[in-house]
Amino acid sequence: MTNRTKARLSQRIADLHASPIREILSVLNQPGMVSFAGGLPSPESFPPCDLSAVPAEFLQYGASEGELALRSQIASDMHDIGLPCEPSQVLVLSGSQQGIDLVAKLFIDPGSLVALEHATYLAALQVFRFFGARFSRLQALLEAQDDAMQVPKLTYVIPTFQNPSGYCMTAAERDALAQACDRTGTVLFEDDPYRDFVYEPCERNPVCARLDRASWVYQGSFSKTLAPGMRLGFLVASPDLMPYLVRLKQAADLHSNRISQWWVLQQLQDPARHARTQALAQNYRVKRDNFSSYLDHYFKDLASWHVPQGGLFFWLKLKQTLDTRKLLPLALEQQLAFMPGEAFMPEPTAGTGQIRLNFSHATADQTEAGLARLAEVFRRALQACA
Amino acid sequence: MTNRTKARLSQRIADLHASPIREILSVLNQPGMVSFAGGLPSPESFPPCDLSAVPAEFLQYGASEGELALRSQIASDMHDIGLPCEPSQVLVLSGSQQGIDLVAKLFIDPGSLVALEHATYLAALQVFRFFGARFSRLQALLEAQDDAMQVPKLTYVIPTFQNPSGYCMTAAERDALAQACDRTGTVLFEDDPYRDFVYEPCERNPVCARLDRASWVYQGSFSKTLAPGMRLGFLVASPDLMPYLVRLKQAADLHSNRISQWWVLQQLQDPARHARTQALAQNYRVKRDNFSSYLDHYFKDLASWHVPQGGLFFWLKLKQTLDTRKLLPLALEQQLAFMPGEAFMPEPTAGTGQIRLNFSHATADQTEAGLARLAEVFRRALQACA
Repeated sequence: MTNRTKARLSQRIADLHASPIREILSVLNQPGMVSFAGGLPSPESFPPCDLSAVPAEFLQYGASEGELALRSQIASDMHDIGLPCEPSQVLVLSGSQQGIDLVAKLFIDPGSLVALEHATYLAALQVFRFFGARFSRLQALLEAQDDAMQVPKLTYVIPTFQNPSGYCMTAAERDALAQACDRTGTVLFEDDPYRDFVYEPCERNPVCARLDRASWVYQGSFSKTLAPGMRLGFLVASPDLMPYLVRLKQAADLHSNRISQWWVLQQLQDPARHARTQALAQNYRVKRDNFSSYLDHYFKDLASWHVPQGGLFFWLKLKQTLDTRKLLPLALEQQLAFMPGEAFMPEPTAGTGQIRLNFSHATADQTEAGLARLAEVFRRALQACA
Repeated sequence: MTNRTKARLSQRIADLHASPIREILSVLNQPGMVSFAGGLPSPESFPPCDLSAVPAEFLQYGASEGELALRSQIASDMHDIGLPCEPSQVLVLSGSQQGIDLVAKLFIDPGSLVALEHATYLAALQVFRFFGARFSRLQALLEAQDDAMQVPKLTYVIPTFQNPSGYCMTAAERDALAQACDRTGTVLFEDDPYRDFVYEPCERNPVCARLDRASWVYQGSFSKTLAPGMRLGFLVASPDLMPYLVRLKQAADLHSNRISQWWVLQQLQDPARHARTQALAQNYRVKRDNFSSYLDHYFKDLASWHVPQGGLFFWLKLKQTLDTRKLLPLALEQQLAFMPGEAFMPEPTAGTGQIRLNFSHATADQTEAGLARLAEVFRRALQACA
């Protein structure tokens, strides 16, 4: 790039870094690669892609808000999970990553404070940073007494099977968070892509449903339970935010793919839908249990972890506080991918000694052999650092 | 919205206005409505939506850049239109509206100068304004001698069958624009959604192909020639900009819909593709000619216009400089939609007396009856103002 062009880049570009997601996705297609890195669903989980009955009019432009029938179905689903809303509060998204972009545009100026979990979803951090956010801890929000200057504009949380930690907030924690939002006036942005992958009884009622006064955005994904390639998600918001979010959506891509919207609606209206989702969760529960056994076998002396009650990830803490980014190339050499914990940290860190491992994507055979080899990579590295 | 929430909106939200596109799209589904407003393709133009052979792996996550086979095909198409590039310079978009969002993020800070045609695509103005752009005229760029402070960071143009004017730049004008970009170092952003709808011989070689030094982004759409509901477009950029654009794409929606990418690739590789596009252009040429006759018949005493050499629009200048936004409700009452010219103006205006009429979407019968009634609406308004 010439200096002339460089001088023309926006200031925010200085805060745009390559995402480990993308870098890792780019090596995943190599034959023989075993990936514990992404949050990829199992390929056997996809419903049939029968699109033969798509009405021809779906090839024309559509509404920015999304198809009304789909929005109505989503509103009905929201009622079922304890967050009743009107179809007019539903905005169809081109994947829930888009919701993060829209919400960031709506609230974040350079220097704006965003409260979030330490650690949290790396591509949310990437977008918030890009728009100039500073980060604060949820704990500070919970302790804040009023809407003073230091209260965050936005609070981003993944209360149910958090990414990367797998943690599921208790009812008391959800109440405390909702009360803090009401007290301080921070806008609550609740990201909930994993809620259907539940393996033990636990609280999953949305935090947004517990708010009295604060404005809020709740978002869900069809990528994990249906198919990521369709790139469809949705958000539901308090009515005051909807006019802004719809305009931002229109400016971003006019509207979401209508073929995907048609297909997702068929899946949501399929009488076998809930049985299918439960079978998928059962399949992932077995995968989690197997993964847990292999971790016990191969990683016991290397790391500690909690078995997650749901979701797609184990979050391991190594016995030494290494910079796990430096171990990634060693793993990739062995055709193994994992996600370094540093990528999930809101603040720069020299090393956290934490890694995220996905258990939904690899097959049973790949998992055992892959974890055995990955443990060897870590064992050698830990010995070298000892 | 509470004052607490209002205080938490980003500063850029003050510049986010409702788009006339979206407002008009929302009434178009009313039965009996005749629309000359949007740039909607004719519904008969859509290829069959046969998706029965989509490979199951397309339901999984994909690459942010897009499918390699599609990127290679687009690079080959670019070679054919005189803008040779590598597949690595191609980024698949979720519609070309997304390209405007990504390019704006890459270059525009509050106060940044963007040169563009007066008038130009209203949803580009919307996005540029949202990121804080100020606007200058192309003519000022053509006269600028060096890369002084007042040179725009970005120059946005639709050289071929411009929206809304329908104008097609001559070879000399394209050369002069390219030379001005090279001389001043402004980044050229060329939007080219209408190039296949050509009705008379005219210069269509991309301005980007004439650059020696300046960085550039060229973008195209599959919405006009294939199907808008698939929400797929692409951009091609100078190699220096690609790493940034790919990261911005990943942050915006991870990647574009893979089903659409598969379908569009089938269409682009169909041996009947060029014959189909030519038949479509021929169909639209007939529509343009009929529209032109009806305009001669009904609007001769009300307005003046040029017959466009391509594209989808007539751009009419009324004989009085009315604010045509005020006429839109009168037209909608008569179940007629048009696009007020004021929406395409970079600067606020009290009234331009210009309107854009689309001729691709309405049927022949709708067109004659619709234009007759629309002329009556304008005639009464002009008389009332005389």
